[in-house]
Amino acid sequence: MSPFEDPNVGLLPSGFIDLLQHEAEAEARGIETVMEVFGAHGYERVRPPLCEFEASLLLGSGEALTEQTFRLMDPDSRRMMALRPDMTTQIARIAATRLADRPRPLRLSYTGTCVVLGTPGREGERQITQAGIELIGVDSALADAEVVLIAAEALSRLEIAHVSFDLSCPALAQAVIDAAGLPSAGRAQLAHAVDRKDAAAVAALGGHMAPVLTALLDAAGPAATALRALGTIDLPSEARRHAERLTAVAHAIADAAPDLRVTVDPVEFRGWQYHTGVCMTVFARGVREELGRGGRYLAHASEPACGLTLRPEALLRAARPIALRKRVYVPHGLSAARAQALRAEGFATVAGFAPVADPASEARRLDCLYVASHNDLTRL
Amino acid sequence: MSPFEDPNVGLLPSGFIDLLQHEAEAEARGIETVMEVFGAHGYERVRPPLCEFEASLLLGSGEALTEQTFRLMDPDSRRMMALRPDMTTQIARIAATRLADRPRPLRLSYTGTCVVLGTPGREGERQITQAGIELIGVDSALADAEVVLIAAEALSRLEIAHVSFDLSCPALAQAVIDAAGLPSAGRAQLAHAVDRKDAAAVAALGGHMAPVLTALLDAAGPAATALRALGTIDLPSEARRHAERLTAVAHAIADAAPDLRVTVDPVEFRGWQYHTGVCMTVFARGVREELGRGGRYLAHASEPACGLTLRPEALLRAARPIALRKRVYVPHGLSAARAQALRAEGFATVAGFAPVADPASEARRLDCLYVASHNDLTRL
Repeated sequence: MSPFEDPNVGLLPSGFIDLLQHEAEAEARGIETVMEVFGAHGYERVRPPLCEFEASLLLGSGEALTEQTFRLMDPDSRRMMALRPDMTTQIARIAATRLADRPRPLRLSYTGTCVVLGTPGREGERQITQAGIELIGVDSALADAEVVLIAAEALSRLEIAHVSFDLSCPALAQAVIDAAGLPSAGRAQLAHAVDRKDAAAVAALGGHMAPVLTALLDAAGPAATALRALGTIDLPSEARRHAERLTAVAHAIADAAPDLRVTVDPVEFRGWQYHTGVCMTVFARGVREELGRGGRYLAHASEPACGLTLRPEALLRAARPIALRKRVYVPHGLSAARAQALRAEGFATVAGFAPVADPASEARRLDCLYVASHNDLTRL
Repeated sequence: MSPFEDPNVGLLPSGFIDLLQHEAEAEARGIETVMEVFGAHGYERVRPPLCEFEASLLLGSGEALTEQTFRLMDPDSRRMMALRPDMTTQIARIAATRLADRPRPLRLSYTGTCVVLGTPGREGERQITQAGIELIGVDSALADAEVVLIAAEALSRLEIAHVSFDLSCPALAQAVIDAAGLPSAGRAQLAHAVDRKDAAAVAALGGHMAPVLTALLDAAGPAATALRALGTIDLPSEARRHAERLTAVAHAIADAAPDLRVTVDPVEFRGWQYHTGVCMTVFARGVREELGRGGRYLAHASEPACGLTLRPEALLRAARPIALRKRVYVPHGLSAARAQALRAEGFATVAGFAPVADPASEARRLDCLYVASHNDLTRL
């Protein structure tokens, strides 16, 4: 018996999957395409490791990510390590340490595998690939817009149609909730109501900010309409500052890419952990899952930063199927130079290891579309 | 204080490193280049997950890999998972399960991150990237040679000079040791002596196989010389069969690539776990570490297989430094179309977010080589 025998060997843990042929190739090409776009905009690639000490990896990432993290013991230092659930904190660490002396703004790009625990009973994917950018050391509407515009260019390069960017600002809604001046329990209840977009509960719990919050709930939709509505709301000063930035970012995006679909939802704050300004979520029509997300935050030493991460697995489901090299059967005995010429023309050559009676049927058996001979290529 | 603050945040666990800019880009391009060569030879890409159940991941991989593996608990199934220390067993699993019905020979390629525990006190790298091929369902000298020739083409595409392939056959030496008919303790001592290439110990411990083993120790070196010496040794029949295959593989490689440097070491068996035939190790002159290794083994249900894995981190140290896109400073206000045209010409554009008094000095500060204007490009 071969050492590889086992009846259960095909079973994978929940949330971990194999990608095969087209999918694996599409994911790899998708990653390289978006990384190429990032690089063309001056975002330099860094590759942090898969594991770090828990204490530094999870610093600042918020409780939700901490609960989502697989831990393992480093037998060398006897300290706990964590498998990264996200790469943003790693990029912030690199920017603050090894690249501390590099000029700002610092533009970095990255891609890699992350692992999350998932919710018991509905894990979904636990292994997640990320490909993203971080723009560190500048705080302006144009910087926020650059991150969106580059992501839009990357998606367009992948021929993903009907993309939309949903802009939000968790800190805006939070500032209005804070301005209601409620005791801590009431504040949490109100935040929960806003999060659920429960207009009745918001009206009941919002105190003197109820009319403002109700108006904010209504100010969601396509950017032009939503921002017009937002402009008419009498916001407290901290919230007003956020609304103005949100408006400036949307305008900068519209100036540069008038055809890009942008929506605004000023009260959305679900899933944002450490963000301090404008946030963005990327969707494509007909694809339920997010293609990516990002936003403004404070990195080490309160350095301003804005980043966006795309999810290559989601991109490959949204993009059109890719074309693989066409397979050509190269019968045994054909010259190496001939096979090499076929590869240079863009074919995948599939070599025969022994003479066969019927090369055409052998080619079909091996999923080849063509049979090569010394001077010719026969399409089957 | 930002949530990212921490004095120790720059510290990484032993064996885990950051790759920055040139290195990260070179590793990524190296991987894509070798995967492209693999694909052109009909090797289809698969992407198994980072974690699997311990029982299936470590099946058949031998004790050494088992001791090298980080384990973590799946909270869902409460079974132990392992971070893969190697991808070969995963590819064998995919070939035997999801691709069981695909025609043979099955050619698969893969790349991904692996994690090993390392030796306490001298961990070296614990995170290892692999990029490899597996040729499954065929057992012939031409198949073994194909794996070597494709790896050689990949290294040549990366312009890595003075590459050499060291062919060995752990099963050959093992067959001779077995033929000595020693009791188990003596057998282990003899194997250890052969492994150390300790000629005196081999002569003392080898029984009636001592002359054969001594001759084998001497039959190492450039393929032509080593195989001539091997041909003159009076081997037991099982070992003779291995020697004939080793010879046939070396001849097939020499026929297809007469300039490729090939050495043969018939008694080398260190580090080979589950291999049953010809094995190969890849080196480049002036680079101490292995660039890759591979060999023949039995996959699930004793299906014959031969594979080879390259190590992209080692490739990037052996290859010449890559050229990155040249950086151009694009002052604030220049048209998006102008910046896009520069990117299409191969430059990396670095956008200014606000007007500056002296664009040339701002460009220099941002490590740019050029400043763009509407019609012109000024080299600094």
